[in-house]
Amino acid sequence: MKPIRVTVWNEYRHEKSDEAVRKVYPQGIHQTIASAFSDPLQVADPADFAVRTATLDEPEHGLTQKVLDETDVLIWWGHMAHQEVSNEVVDRIQIRILGGMGLIVLHSAHYSRIFQRMMGTSCRLRWREADEKCRIFNIRPDHPITQGIPDTFELPAEEMYGERFGIPDPEELIFLEWFQGGDVFRGGCCFRREKGKIFYFQPGHETYPQYYNPIIRQIIVNAARWAAPLSPVAPEMDSPNAPLFEVMPKH
Amino acid sequence: MKPIRVTVWNEYRHEKSDEAVRKVYPQGIHQTIASAFSDPLQVADPADFAVRTATLDEPEHGLTQKVLDETDVLIWWGHMAHQEVSNEVVDRIQIRILGGMGLIVLHSAHYSRIFQRMMGTSCRLRWREADEKCRIFNIRPDHPITQGIPDTFELPAEEMYGERFGIPDPEELIFLEWFQGGDVFRGGCCFRREKGKIFYFQPGHETYPQYYNPIIRQIIVNAARWAAPLSPVAPEMDSPNAPLFEVMPKH
Amino acid sequence: MKPIRVTVWNEYRHEKSDEAVRKVYPQGIHQTIASAFSDPLQVADPADFAVRTATLDEPEHGLTQKVLDETDVLIWWGHMAHQEVSNEVVDRIQIRILGGMGLIVLHSAHYSRIFQRMMGTSCRLRWREADEKCRIFNIRPDHPITQGIPDTFELPAEEMYGERFGIPDPEELIFLEWFQGGDVFRGGCCFRREKGKIFYFQPGHETYPQYYNPIIRQIIVNAARWAAPLSPVAPEMDSPNAPLFEVMPKH
Amino acid sequence: MKPIRVTVWNEYRHEKSDEAVRKVYPQGIHQTIASAFSDPLQVADPADFAVRTATLDEPEHGLTQKVLDETDVLIWWGHMAHQEVSNEVVDRIQIRILGGMGLIVLHSAHYSRIFQRMMGTSCRLRWREADEKCRIFNIRPDHPITQGIPDTFELPAEEMYGERFGIPDPEELIFLEWFQGGDVFRGGCCFRREKGKIFYFQPGHETYPQYYNPIIRQIIVNAARWAAPLSPVAPEMDSPNAPLFEVMPKH
Repeated sequence: MKPIRVTVWNEYRHEKSDEAVRKVYPQGIHQTIASAFSDPLQVADPADFAVRTATLDEPEHGLTQKVLDETDVLIWWGHMAHQEVSNEVVDRIQIRILGGMGLIVLHSAHYSRIFQRMMGTSCRLRWREADEKCRIFNIRPDHPITQGIPDTFELPAEEMYGERFGIPDPEELIFLEWFQGGDVFRGGCCFRREKGKIFYFQPGHETYPQYYNPIIRQIIVNAARWAAPLSPVAPEMDSPNAPLFEVMPKH
Repeated sequence: MKPIRVTVWNEYRHEKSDEAVRKVYPQGIHQTIASAFSDPLQVADPADFAVRTATLDEPEHGLTQKVLDETDVLIWWGHMAHQEVSNEVVDRIQIRILGGMGLIVLHSAHYSRIFQRMMGTSCRLRWREADEKCRIFNIRPDHPITQGIPDTFELPAEEMYGERFGIPDPEELIFLEWFQGGDVFRGGCCFRREKGKIFYFQPGHETYPQYYNPIIRQIIVNAARWAAPLSPVAPEMDSPNAPLFEVMPKH
Repeated sequence: MKPIRVTVWNEYRHEKSDEAVRKVYPQGIHQTIASAFSDPLQVADPADFAVRTATLDEPEHGLTQKVLDETDVLIWWGHMAHQEVSNEVVDRIQIRILGGMGLIVLHSAHYSRIFQRMMGTSCRLRWREADEKCRIFNIRPDHPITQGIPDTFELPAEEMYGERFGIPDPEELIFLEWFQGGDVFRGGCCFRREKGKIFYFQPGHETYPQYYNPIIRQIIVNAARWAAPLSPVAPEMDSPNAPLFEVMPKH
Repeated sequence: MKPIRVTVWNEYRHEKSDEAVRKVYPQGIHQTIASAFSDPLQVADPADFAVRTATLDEPEHGLTQKVLDETDVLIWWGHMAHQEVSNEVVDRIQIRILGGMGLIVLHSAHYSRIFQRMMGTSCRLRWREADEKCRIFNIRPDHPITQGIPDTFELPAEEMYGERFGIPDPEELIFLEWFQGGDVFRGGCCFRREKGKIFYFQPGHETYPQYYNPIIRQIIVNAARWAAPLSPVAPEMDSPNAPLFEVMPKH
């Protein structure tokens, strides 16, 4: 069994410019997420995953064709600089997803260019920063993403994301969220786009330590296992001419 | 009841450059499709629809903001010049669809920029020109699009389009197609993208007279009724800050 | 346009045995629901609907074959006596639904025999009577059921129904509910079963006046329009032998 | 890793009463299917599965509570005696499925009582015995069920099953079938019902040797892996009273 090759991508701007965020994630959100894949609490066998990170300000945002060619699952966190991600890189990621690479979209990356590209919609939502409690309900206990996850659990504080969430109907709705201030949200959604699997997961505002929470970490690791391609990634973008299967009658 | 405002868009190139196509559609495919909406065979009350046409080589491809603002349902036929449709116009159509405008995508427009944009996928398929028989099965007799349509009907010849069709799962699968040369195709598919409804329908190769066929015409008219917005078109692209519904406890 | 023939079915036991319920619904829940279909607040043209009622303790529960044959949409409220509904009547309703009759399932009828029959699942949920506030979110503003319904509205008190709701994935998820005590629920769900449309809607505990609420009434009326068959109800339960469409080659 | 416990159930009547069938399946269809799970062509490690069989004429149809309690995936073939399966056994299987047991429904078992029970529909279809060619298209190359399965393959002869197939929309449509006589069919469909996964697969008329075909066998083995529960089977049929998560304000 080869390891699943995960690339954790982070915009990595808040951590540099905002002291409050740096306190929570001194090495950057990407390093905290990446650490889940070698954390014995989440992963019994460390050989299951091979993890790297990439950030916006690296050349080609750290996502060269070579890096993507070696990526089975891409995890994406972004917020304030979505528009700085280049067309070329978005195109490249989309093609790789259609060929089978998994994509995990976290929190404010609902507005990332790659998620909008894959959905074809605005991906808009309502939001509020009010330090409010969030309770997450697991409505698919049979799903690979929820193995080991309780029926419900709380985050003491999270940015509120509320409906209407401007997405196509997810193929599978995994988590529903309750917010103390009076809102609900489809906080865990699975999509398939050709051979690629996509999971959107709401938690992870930059000022809260969600990515240290063992339940959140387990969900992300489970999602990476679920989203990994079952066969080698191979996009089929063209429409080939097809020979006849059957001999046609003479006219 | 106000009329449903339909805009039939056609690339309108084959008809100018190819004698065989001009023979079938001397006024252009768009005029033949448009005529269905005032044809007593398909529409009992001509006041139900107000139809206009637009083509690629008009300024802004005939789809100015004003034209789109007055369009409830856009019908799209294109084939050889998909890449000539400008970004600006594709963006404009997408936003209008997300706000509630319907879109009907015909035949080779599976590869149109607007359909790819709305799907987030390649929309690839397999194809063959072999003058082969196509039998269409109506698998949703309860649906608005199939009212008055038989359980199955034949086209004496159609270009074969075959699976795998590179689309997201349709929210509703309406027609399945059988091709004489040995292929099958999901030939009638409904999608919703925020407030907009989208119908992809396979028949309509430029060398065959499908758009004169009363069953095909009825399906297109039915689809326009189904895709028409139920309330005024209003895109919501932004993510608004939302006030608390509930008073929060003091910490 | 013929009127849509609605039959409102009610168990009609709580109202007889429980003074608190009788105070809220002195004529029975069925009469209050039925009145929405001739209420000018909900229905501009009273000729749109023809309404009758039926209750558990009538012969054949008021649902003879003749009554069902004259019903386009059946509305169902039950709670304490689900098991008293006979097999024969459940069979009869199921066959009619498969042929195109609509079914609207209200509140505690999640556990009715007919809903369990159509779903194939337990339809279990978590519940609580705590006089708690319920806020309902409309996540499908494009849908026939939500026309005229605000993006969100409150019920001052409702019995809590919470996830996990033991249903198949709904074809369309229309409403999500937030409960003050900390729960969420998929409170408005559409299902299709062959030619029949089914809508489950959560509000309506017998001690609260929800069926006098004009928004709730509008939703029920909208749902009846949506669920009404588009063509005459005609179940197809058998598997017919089918002739060849194509001449087969000699072996 | 514990083995997946598979029980192959067969009606086992045709093989006793019909010489032509006995020639194809001298030990019964169940034994041929069961043999796939220890066939090195399909299963690299024989410890992956533990297989037993059960048939209609055994006591309790071979499906005692104990047998079901030890079954992770149940495979079902039946045709002429669907109505002889007892209510009690159908109830028992349904409850086990809702708790997480997988169900694989083959060919004429579309009309079995357990499949009708899980679907809530008639499961009717059109059929024809004409020794016709069947070509199967894999439209989900990303799915666990299609790993190692080609994009398309042929059966030289199969009973035709054609649309309209009276099922709810499958959550995932895996295979489409083309029949030489002019029909199409949704021949491979996945459903989820609470924690249980269900796969319907069309091939397998009793007079053809389909269950010796290595591709068919691989699909059945793959489906068993996919349908196996991810956690111990545990039905939740009741609706529990739920305590408040949040302290409610005083009125």
